[in-house]
Amino acid sequence: MKIIKVNLRERSYNIIVGNNIISKLGRHLKRMRVGSDAYVITNPLVKNKCGSALQETLKKSGFKLKFKLVADTEKSKSIENLSSVIRDLANFDKKRKVFVIAFGGGVVGDLAGFVASIYKRGVPLVQIPTTLLAQVDSAIGGKTAVDLKEGKNLVGTFYQPRLVLSDTTLLKSLSRRQLSCGMAEVIKYAVIKDRELFAYLEKHYKDVLALEPAALEYVISRCSRIKAEIVSRDEKEKKGLRTILNFGHTIGHAIEAAAGYTKYNHAEAVALGMIAALKISQEAGLLNNAVLEKILSLIAKSGLPVRIKGISAQAIINAHYRDKKFSGRKNMFVLLEGIGRTKIAQDVPLHLIKQAVNYANNRRELPSF
Amino acid sequence: MKIIKVNLRERSYNIIVGNNIISKLGRHLKRMRVGSDAYVITNPLVKNKCGSALQETLKKSGFKLKFKLVADTEKSKSIENLSSVIRDLANFDKKRKVFVIAFGGGVVGDLAGFVASIYKRGVPLVQIPTTLLAQVDSAIGGKTAVDLKEGKNLVGTFYQPRLVLSDTTLLKSLSRRQLSCGMAEVIKYAVIKDRELFAYLEKHYKDVLALEPAALEYVISRCSRIKAEIVSRDEKEKKGLRTILNFGHTIGHAIEAAAGYTKYNHAEAVALGMIAALKISQEAGLLNNAVLEKILSLIAKSGLPVRIKGISAQAIINAHYRDKKFSGRKNMFVLLEGIGRTKIAQDVPLHLIKQAVNYANNRRELPSF
Repeated sequence: MKIIKVNLRERSYNIIVGNNIISKLGRHLKRMRVGSDAYVITNPLVKNKCGSALQETLKKSGFKLKFKLVADTEKSKSIENLSSVIRDLANFDKKRKVFVIAFGGGVVGDLAGFVASIYKRGVPLVQIPTTLLAQVDSAIGGKTAVDLKEGKNLVGTFYQPRLVLSDTTLLKSLSRRQLSCGMAEVIKYAVIKDRELFAYLEKHYKDVLALEPAALEYVISRCSRIKAEIVSRDEKEKKGLRTILNFGHTIGHAIEAAAGYTKYNHAEAVALGMIAALKISQEAGLLNNAVLEKILSLIAKSGLPVRIKGISAQAIINAHYRDKKFSGRKNMFVLLEGIGRTKIAQDVPLHLIKQAVNYANNRRELPSF
Repeated sequence: MKIIKVNLRERSYNIIVGNNIISKLGRHLKRMRVGSDAYVITNPLVKNKCGSALQETLKKSGFKLKFKLVADTEKSKSIENLSSVIRDLANFDKKRKVFVIAFGGGVVGDLAGFVASIYKRGVPLVQIPTTLLAQVDSAIGGKTAVDLKEGKNLVGTFYQPRLVLSDTTLLKSLSRRQLSCGMAEVIKYAVIKDRELFAYLEKHYKDVLALEPAALEYVISRCSRIKAEIVSRDEKEKKGLRTILNFGHTIGHAIEAAAGYTKYNHAEAVALGMIAALKISQEAGLLNNAVLEKILSLIAKSGLPVRIKGISAQAIINAHYRDKKFSGRKNMFVLLEGIGRTKIAQDVPLHLIKQAVNYANNRRELPSF
C-alpha cells in the first residue's frame, strides 16, 4: 500500500493506492469524520461487480448508504440528469450528515464531484475510482464537470475530495479496451515526466495489462504522485503548470471532434494526438527518431491505436482550427525534447501540423503485443 | 465614496459605496482585467430604470455586453432557469473573455453568482446590487444559490465576486416596501454589532427612507464593513462567526414557512423574528424592556411589520419544529444582551418560544412614522 499526499493547505488529502484496500475504507472514513450517510454514485456494472465490497466495509463501520445508479455514458453528465441526481440526494439527506462517494470511472467522478461541490454549498466527497484512467488521472485534482448541449465539460467546479482510494482489485471489471485507455494516460505521464516509469513500462507493460497487483500498485502510485505534485502547485490551472498534462490533447481533441465523438474515445484520440505531437517534435528538431519509435512501440504494445483510420487529415485540420477559433487563442502544443522533458510551443505552423497528422494517418499499424 | 476591503487572501476584493459611481465602473473593470465581454444578468424593471447607465460606462471603456433578463421572482432560481441562462451564456461566449455582472437584487445576485461560479469552472463575477437589502447583505460574502423543489437555496457555492459596486442612485427604482426590507437588515446589523449605527438610525431613519445620498452612503458602508469583517474571518461559515447574522432568523424562517412564503417576504419575516428573539432575550433576563422598546420603535418607524397577522402562534411553533427536525440540530437562537452584544443560545425551552411568538402575534401595531 502506498499513500500519496496532495498538498493544498486546508484542502490537503491522501491518495491511497493498494491491493484489496477497500475493506479498510469504513475505518478510514470514520476516523476522518466525513459524515454518517454515504450517497454512492455509481453505474450498474460497477455496482454489480464491486458494490458488495463497498457496502460491507461501510455497513461494518456503521454508515448508512444508498447506491445511486447512473448510466455509464456521457449522457449521465447532462444538466437534466444532474438535476435528477441532486434532487434524489436531497430526498436521501434527511436528518444526519451526508457525504458523496464517486464509485466508478471518469463519468461518475465528474458528475459526483460536481454534485458534492454544489449540494448545500459543498458536502464531503470521496473518490473511489474503478478504472485505470480514473485512478491515475481524473479522480485526482478536483476538476468536476457536467455537459451542456453547447459543449462538453462547460459547467463544473474545482472541488477537492477528502480522500482518493485506488484499489487495484477494482480494475478486474475492466474490458481490455478500457485498460488500454488507462495505459494511454500512464504512458503520457511517463513520457512527459518520468524516465524511470517509462523504463519500467517498457519492461513490464504485460504485467500491467495482466493486472499483476505489484505492477499496478507501482504504476498507479507513480502516476498519482506526478499528478498530485502538479495539482499541489497549480490547483486551479492558473499558473500553466498543468499545461504539460495536455500532451497529445491538441490534435487529440481535433480527432475526437472530426470523428464525431464515436469512433475513438478520449484516451485513444489522445494516444493518436501524442503520436502527432511526437512527430512535430521530431520534425522541429527537438526529438530524435529512436525515442519517437520507442514511444510509438510502447503505445502499440499497450493495445492503443497508432494510426488514424477512416478520418481524413483535412477533417482533423479543420476541426483543429475550429477549436482554436472557439478558444480565442493561438494554437498550443506540448512537445517533447526527450523522455521526461517537455517544451511548450505556440503557433506551430500549419505545414508541420499537416505533416504530423498525415504521419499518424498513413503509417502502417505497428505489430501489436 | 467609501471603499471597503474584504480580506480573503488571493480572493480579496473591494466594495465601493457611493453616489452615482456606476459611471466609473468601466474604468474600474478595465484596470482589473476581468475580461472583455460582460454578460449582465438582471430583471426587466432594473434594466428599464438603470440599464442605460450601465451600458454607457461599459461601452465607453470598450466592453461588449449582453443583458440577460430573468423574472424578479424566486422562480428564476429554479434549476430549469439556471440551465437556460447558462446555455445562453455559452452561446454568448464565443471568442473573447467573458465575465458575469449581477445587476439586481437578491434573486439576481444568487443566480448570477452561481452561474459565474460553475461556468467553465468559474469566470469573474461583479456584483452591482440595486436594492438596499442586496447592497448591505446578499451581494457581499460569496454565498450563491439556486432552489430545488425539495428546498430553497439547497444548491450553491461559495464564490467571491471580484468587485461589489453599491451605487446609491440605483435605489431610486425601489418601492417603499423594498426599502423597508433593506432597513430590516440595516437594523439587524446595528442591533447585533454597531451601537453608533443604531444611534444614527434613531436620528436619521427618515433620511435613509428618503434616499438622502449622504445618509445612504453612511449606512450602506457601515453595514458593508460589518459584513466584510465577518466574512473575512469565516468565509465558508465553518467557524460559527457568521452565526450572529442569523439574528431573527430562527422564528423568521418559521413565520415564512407557516405563511406559505407569500404573506411576508424574507426581510419582513426576519423583522418579526427579531421581535420574537428580543422578547426571548428580555424574558430570559438578558435585555431590559427599554432597549426592547427602542428597537421595536425603530422597526415600526422603518415601515416594517411589528405584529404577525393572520397566522396562528401554533402554526409558527409547528413550522419551527419541522425546520428543526429537518436540520437535525437542536434549536438555536441569537439573543441580545444590549445593543451590539449578542449571545448564542441553544435549546431555548418551548414555553419561552411560545411566549415570544404570542407577544409578536398579539401586540397592537405601534404608530408608524
